[in-house]
Amino acid sequence: MNLILDFGNTRVKAGVFDGKDLAVHKIFDSATQLIDHLPAFPPIDKCLIGSVTGAHEAVFETLKKKFNTSLFSTTTPVPLKNLYQSALTLGSDRMAAAVGAYSFYPNSNVLTIDAGTCIKYNFVNADNEYLGGAISPGIPMRLQAMHHYTHALPEIKADENYEKLTGQNTRESLLSGAIIGAALEADGMISRYKTLYPALQIVITGGDSPYLCKQLKNRFFANQNILLYGLNTILNFNIEK
Amino acid sequence: MNLILDFGNTRVKAGVFDGKDLAVHKIFDSATQLIDHLPAFPPIDKCLIGSVTGAHEAVFETLKKKFNTSLFSTTTPVPLKNLYQSALTLGSDRMAAAVGAYSFYPNSNVLTIDAGTCIKYNFVNADNEYLGGAISPGIPMRLQAMHHYTHALPEIKADENYEKLTGQNTRESLLSGAIIGAALEADGMISRYKTLYPALQIVITGGDSPYLCKQLKNRFFANQNILLYGLNTILNFNIEK
Repeated sequence: MNLILDFGNTRVKAGVFDGKDLAVHKIFDSATQLIDHLPAFPPIDKCLIGSVTGAHEAVFETLKKKFNTSLFSTTTPVPLKNLYQSALTLGSDRMAAAVGAYSFYPNSNVLTIDAGTCIKYNFVNADNEYLGGAISPGIPMRLQAMHHYTHALPEIKADENYEKLTGQNTRESLLSGAIIGAALEADGMISRYKTLYPALQIVITGGDSPYLCKQLKNRFFANQNILLYGLNTILNFNIEK
Repeated sequence: MNLILDFGNTRVKAGVFDGKDLAVHKIFDSATQLIDHLPAFPPIDKCLIGSVTGAHEAVFETLKKKFNTSLFSTTTPVPLKNLYQSALTLGSDRMAAAVGAYSFYPNSNVLTIDAGTCIKYNFVNADNEYLGGAISPGIPMRLQAMHHYTHALPEIKADENYEKLTGQNTRESLLSGAIIGAALEADGMISRYKTLYPALQIVITGGDSPYLCKQLKNRFFANQNILLYGLNTILNFNIEK
């Protein structure tokens, strides 16, 4: 069994995989909560950690004593050919998302959209080559920024139920610009990639993906655990090597 | 002759109109620079000021002594029916842009896109009713926010020559997300309005409009002086009343 941990800014996502299959997954509010819960998981052989913030550091030694534990980094071998020009500065979450999408659609053109603090677009072609993509502000960041960087605009919270195109007051105008705007951006990105790469697969993940999924015209596969699948695929790839 | 002044965050745009026609227009770096230049303008009868920041205050009294000068506010009568629910909080720049677009396309469905600090979408229908729209972050704001609100992303300057869909390094990924992303958002907004309102006219203005114009698939009319035209139309409307 593989234990896969994805340390985000505020939470830890954990997945226990039996080979390629996600047997158990759970979200913890803190690293200590995760440590307390470990005995409840099935017996673990190996553990791989993905962490973009350093939040794993507090528990890394504890985990190492319990299992064969490693940290995913830009130098970890992956089952994709990395054609990114600055491979060493590529966020490990972006590669994990790309490999996760590849694990569902190998040998395919796949665009992954990971909607979190930022919205990250990652493209892998049918030759299993990672080509890069784009990073745009996440929906809450768009709303915060419009308040922070202007004199007159209020701070508005994102609202998952908002669907109106034409905002009829300040709150609605900001929600339309941030939510409908981000969804139109995502739909536009998909359409552009579709014209360049036939039979494109779309994979959507991340905490804010429901905002996008409701609005997209293009077809997609949505799964909140794409990064866990990606890290597990990377762990298995390195075990098999 | 009407003198129209549009006070922005850093600059003052001035237009001298002969009836409906823009005879002279000029951009000043400061209000004092504008005052020094006044004798060079043709003789002025009336002056209308648009200002979202209060930057006009330093010279308002000076202008009042020279011409019949007024300030455009949310209570100034306009030639559109304002159906915005919170008409008193509607930014005067948004109404000025909408009236400017109306002055080119009266009795038409018109979507105005004003790309500045924020990107403002304003919709006027064929019954000359202002319905509202959306506000999303401007392109430099998107880039600033991604640096400001994350640990790992660098601060990148917008680049008018950037055109690549798939960013192959961090800089390109951020530029694709901010520039291509904003253009796809704008194109998507236009397409959505088009499905709802036939024979839609598109008017694009604002300092960052070149970023959008290069990428849009939809047809549009671009003019950097839409707000000046709008304010002049409002001034003439109030003179005629």
